[in-house]
Amino acid sequence: MSAPRNKAAIIGGGVIGGGWAARFLLNGWDVAVFDPDPEAQRKISEVIGNARRALPALYDRAMPEEGVLTFHDDMAEAVSGTLWVQESVPERLDLKHKVLGALSDMAPQEAVIGSSTSGFKPSELNEQGARAVVAHPFNPVYLLPLVELVGEPDRTEKAAGILRSIGMYPLTLRKEIDAHIADRLLEAVWRESLWLVKDGVATTEEIDDAIRMAFGIRWAQMGLFETYRIAGGEAGMKHFMAQFGPCLSWPWTKLIDVPEFTDELVDLIAGQSDDQSGHMSIRELERLRDDNIVGMVRSLKRTGSGAGGVVKEHEAALPEGETKDGLPVTVRRQVPTSWTDYNGHMNETHYLEAASLATDNLMALVGADAQYVASGKSYFTVETHIRYLDEVHAGDQLLITTQVLSGEGKRMHLFHRLWRKDGTLAATVEKMLLHTDLKTRRACPPDELVAQALADMAASHSGKTAEGAARYVGQPRETA
Amino acid sequence: MSAPRNKAAIIGGGVIGGGWAARFLLNGWDVAVFDPDPEAQRKISEVIGNARRALPALYDRAMPEEGVLTFHDDMAEAVSGTLWVQESVPERLDLKHKVLGALSDMAPQEAVIGSSTSGFKPSELNEQGARAVVAHPFNPVYLLPLVELVGEPDRTEKAAGILRSIGMYPLTLRKEIDAHIADRLLEAVWRESLWLVKDGVATTEEIDDAIRMAFGIRWAQMGLFETYRIAGGEAGMKHFMAQFGPCLSWPWTKLIDVPEFTDELVDLIAGQSDDQSGHMSIRELERLRDDNIVGMVRSLKRTGSGAGGVVKEHEAALPEGETKDGLPVTVRRQVPTSWTDYNGHMNETHYLEAASLATDNLMALVGADAQYVASGKSYFTVETHIRYLDEVHAGDQLLITTQVLSGEGKRMHLFHRLWRKDGTLAATVEKMLLHTDLKTRRACPPDELVAQALADMAASHSGKTAEGAARYVGQPRETA
Repeated sequence: MSAPRNKAAIIGGGVIGGGWAARFLLNGWDVAVFDPDPEAQRKISEVIGNARRALPALYDRAMPEEGVLTFHDDMAEAVSGTLWVQESVPERLDLKHKVLGALSDMAPQEAVIGSSTSGFKPSELNEQGARAVVAHPFNPVYLLPLVELVGEPDRTEKAAGILRSIGMYPLTLRKEIDAHIADRLLEAVWRESLWLVKDGVATTEEIDDAIRMAFGIRWAQMGLFETYRIAGGEAGMKHFMAQFGPCLSWPWTKLIDVPEFTDELVDLIAGQSDDQSGHMSIRELERLRDDNIVGMVRSLKRTGSGAGGVVKEHEAALPEGETKDGLPVTVRRQVPTSWTDYNGHMNETHYLEAASLATDNLMALVGADAQYVASGKSYFTVETHIRYLDEVHAGDQLLITTQVLSGEGKRMHLFHRLWRKDGTLAATVEKMLLHTDLKTRRACPPDELVAQALADMAASHSGKTAEGAARYVGQPRETA
Repeated sequence: MSAPRNKAAIIGGGVIGGGWAARFLLNGWDVAVFDPDPEAQRKISEVIGNARRALPALYDRAMPEEGVLTFHDDMAEAVSGTLWVQESVPERLDLKHKVLGALSDMAPQEAVIGSSTSGFKPSELNEQGARAVVAHPFNPVYLLPLVELVGEPDRTEKAAGILRSIGMYPLTLRKEIDAHIADRLLEAVWRESLWLVKDGVATTEEIDDAIRMAFGIRWAQMGLFETYRIAGGEAGMKHFMAQFGPCLSWPWTKLIDVPEFTDELVDLIAGQSDDQSGHMSIRELERLRDDNIVGMVRSLKRTGSGAGGVVKEHEAALPEGETKDGLPVTVRRQVPTSWTDYNGHMNETHYLEAASLATDNLMALVGADAQYVASGKSYFTVETHIRYLDEVHAGDQLLITTQVLSGEGKRMHLFHRLWRKDGTLAATVEKMLLHTDLKTRRACPPDELVAQALADMAASHSGKTAEGAARYVGQPRETA
């Protein structure tokens, strides 16, 4: 953990720059910010606050120790020693030329210089000699994995490797094009939506509902083409195309004109948006959005679809192997908001969910891992006793140690201790498991290697008293 | 439960008609299908099979008993006695005229006649005297709540009431327009995407990734305008418009032409789609999609956003109040796939999750409900003992009864029994809770009414032995 940390420089610290800063910082990079805005420090700190609340909640392992965040008045100082420099200044080509030119001179030769531009092509950004690539992210940058990469292949390849290491999903374009891929699609929807509002067909809220009650949910996990492939039914994509292709020349496409961008249209949209969302502040909306994204992406981790697959893969690359008090640390993770309930603390269910993850990890430590399960053998829990000793809250760091009380024959008797970061023992979870043949669903002895590893671990843990084990619910203290 | 069931007729039984059939059937309606296709019965049965697996998994309460599904060769027989008739025949205006005309003659006067048309306006559908409304759903109809309603206000109002009662989200358009709202947006994205593939900028898979790794996730929960409101930051929607409005006249919109729909383009798209998804059958893709949707919508239930809010509201309207063996039934629900694990059965955590829901419902039964909690008092679990007696699988019906072992002073001692539908006792969950002041976080006595209701329930349950209570983990059977 004492290896020198990587360093990134963030040039321009708005919502996007702040999101980049948070993404690097929470992945263990030092981050140097350059932004002449006197408000930059406050704004970035707020974005990072949101990110600390949400990003670690995507993972069931601890993220690296945070890097160090610094602010600089001198651009050369900010970019010194960096591996990545990210420009997120306003979308004006003259300004991009000036900033990217200066960065290309000042930054280390080996540093990637990424531009967050929504619309400009690398050939435009670099026409005055800069060496930038387009690295176009999506808000909130600390949660959404996509980064569109456009530029010289050797530069985008290097950039892609770094982005993957901080849990992002680089998508390298085959050709440069104005607005890359996603913003072309977004622009098309935006254009049609403005027409619908202007023509009085629907309000902003109705359009949002039309999206989030239907195709938004489809797109969060499969996108456009895979969804349509399914819609084609057994006959597949060609059938779908034959069925819906002709619509392209129907009146559905008559609204491909661009609506005139008048003050009246701006007021209409802004007014409807106030009616729709004005009862919540932007901060509240951001947190609601982040909670929703965390919940949905966590559910996509189960199937490995889309962003869930990205998190799953990144999580597998996070370090493990810690011990505490001579016992293996089987879980170290942040408590997501979605684990809390109406009592304002972690719901009882998730004490067991965390302990269940700890059991999985303990099993892996003695060789009963995913491969072992795939071979047709596993452990089934037959009994569990939980003592809830203290409250745990959203954002708390949770650490679980696992003691093997005994591991003989088919039985595995475990004692998990759930610790809060402040050193408080929040719960103990005692579990009895039986080794089971997954075909016959009957108990059977484990493989020799597993049995031996389990026995060894039980022996090495035997010196420790497991206070609170072998108790029944409601048992008076003195009879313990 | 013996009231006469409502009846719907489904005219045309493809993927969409089958989805409608499943939606009505699983909400307790009888469904009569008319479709001359000899394969209709098989196709609809497959859709309903998917729906049985997924729709009840969205709910934490039991859905109504399924209605009866029948197939008819005679359209008049199919529509007799219906409250809803849904037409989902191919998208040809002459065919719609013929079918909707016949249905308008045959169906009961009070029945809603809905058309699943993606593109036609009610004025077109009814130009030969039919009395249909557009009721445009989204695939999979049994999971996605949106239905776009267009037509005469008295007809759409009646239709909206029925759709809400089967868990859907009616969105009534203010004006008729070709392709309604959602398909206008979809068509715009489809058009841009075809250009991107045709021009070699991206493959179908890359476009899907651009969507599902980024804005698809945003749109599943908030839609377009609310997302942009957040992007505008503290300055809000007007600021966003000022920043990005001008893009409408930038080169981003140069691709608003319609690409020519050649065989070459069809082959290009179909080939790329095969490369992307050809390793999975359509059935497998459907199940993956459904699992993803169920998981995401369940996570949105927590915040009440989008489709999660729709399910939450519908769930609250589902009946409760059952008893079994003289004990209150505190949970009756289907086990979702997302509750299972690598051992091919319900994960240990979700035995407790179900029991935790049962505890919430028991609390509500004695008056410690959401309102009571909002007043600053609640029960906290301090100890739990679970005996896992048998396996539970995805799709199983789970029923929980709750016995109050004692309820004196601050303590509430509960014993949950988890039953499978086949009558097998799958687990017992014994819990001790303490009544707690939510401000001081200290134990305190409950309100008089709650204390009394709890004591009454404990007295009425006292005749029953709770076998397996007061045991510790690993306790030998003979010492019980």
